[in-house]
Amino acid sequence: MTTHGRRGEHLGRRQQILAAGLAVFSSSGFHGGSVRDIARRAGLSQAGLLHHFPSKAQLLGAVLTWRDDIARRELGEPAPDGLDLIRRLVAPPAVTRTQELVRLRVITSAEGVAFGHPVHGYVRHRQASVLDMVRQALEHAAARGELRQDVDPAGTARMLVALMDGLRVQWLLHPEQADITGDLRRCLQPLLTVDL
Amino acid sequence: MTTHGRRGEHLGRRQQILAAGLAVFSSSGFHGGSVRDIARRAGLSQAGLLHHFPSKAQLLGAVLTWRDDIARRELGEPAPDGLDLIRRLVAPPAVTRTQELVRLRVITSAEGVAFGHPVHGYVRHRQASVLDMVRQALEHAAARGELRQDVDPAGTARMLVALMDGLRVQWLLHPEQADITGDLRRCLQPLLTVDL
Repeated sequence: MTTHGRRGEHLGRRQQILAAGLAVFSSSGFHGGSVRDIARRAGLSQAGLLHHFPSKAQLLGAVLTWRDDIARRELGEPAPDGLDLIRRLVAPPAVTRTQELVRLRVITSAEGVAFGHPVHGYVRHRQASVLDMVRQALEHAAARGELRQDVDPAGTARMLVALMDGLRVQWLLHPEQADITGDLRRCLQPLLTVDL
Repeated sequence: MTTHGRRGEHLGRRQQILAAGLAVFSSSGFHGGSVRDIARRAGLSQAGLLHHFPSKAQLLGAVLTWRDDIARRELGEPAPDGLDLIRRLVAPPAVTRTQELVRLRVITSAEGVAFGHPVHGYVRHRQASVLDMVRQALEHAAARGELRQDVDPAGTARMLVALMDGLRVQWLLHPEQADITGDLRRCLQPLLTVDL
């Protein structure tokens, strides 16, 4: 086998493990997800899996980073700004709003609020950077006169991020009654001077 | 010892276990929380604990019910209605907004979105009943002319519950930047015809 082939095989194996990790962590979280289950799903022994990811915490970290990279690419490159970014967050591509991905996000965010959880730092950082990104987009919209003058971009960013987090939970629990995009539009539109 | 004394001792022991369960489940969730840790905190053997609560799932259920009963009493009896209920939810008594209680709620809600989790039914039911309670309160406010005429009570209930869920997560992760009550007021006030 060529070096290129070996590297390809290595990457393919890594990808299988990440997909298996996503399936297990999104239903059981970090604490409940077992390396043994993930290895079995990926068709590997536990030792084989640990060769690629030396610990469960590193594996969860890699699954989250992998998904974040995909989500970032789906936002578009370069990332949209101002109201275009907000529109994208309000009505994201269907591929990022699957039960599995949304559950992974909800469960790891919640587990990660506990000090000492292996993704506590990651979750704190992600929450802060999402808030920053949304606040900046709203500030740019405000600079273009697209936000009502009495609307505070930082407060609106907190509101929008909280709404997205909370509506995801409602959607997971009662998908038939939830309407994430509709609810977000209804809350945001009154704060804008242009159509969302 | 009298029967009364034994029953008092039994209740006291149960109470200790519930408090220990709250401490452990609120930091590690159901999957990560171990019956052994809870027993140790309560000063009991594992067998001693299992005499009171035959399984970890039953213990978590009892901790959640215990906290719900306290929260209900703190809302006031009879429960306030209309905008008085909304005001109470927006600015709850400090005792219900402790890190430990809020973390328990966030973690169990998130874990419980997974089918097959022992509190999946409880979490679905609680979410639906909170949504119902808030929607009814807003409908009563609307009937009194306290809601703007173009505001939909059901949509506003979904928004308010999602905001509360999401803002709790922000508060746990970045308490210094969060202002749950202020943010909720800012979102709700424009929908009302009276002061919140």
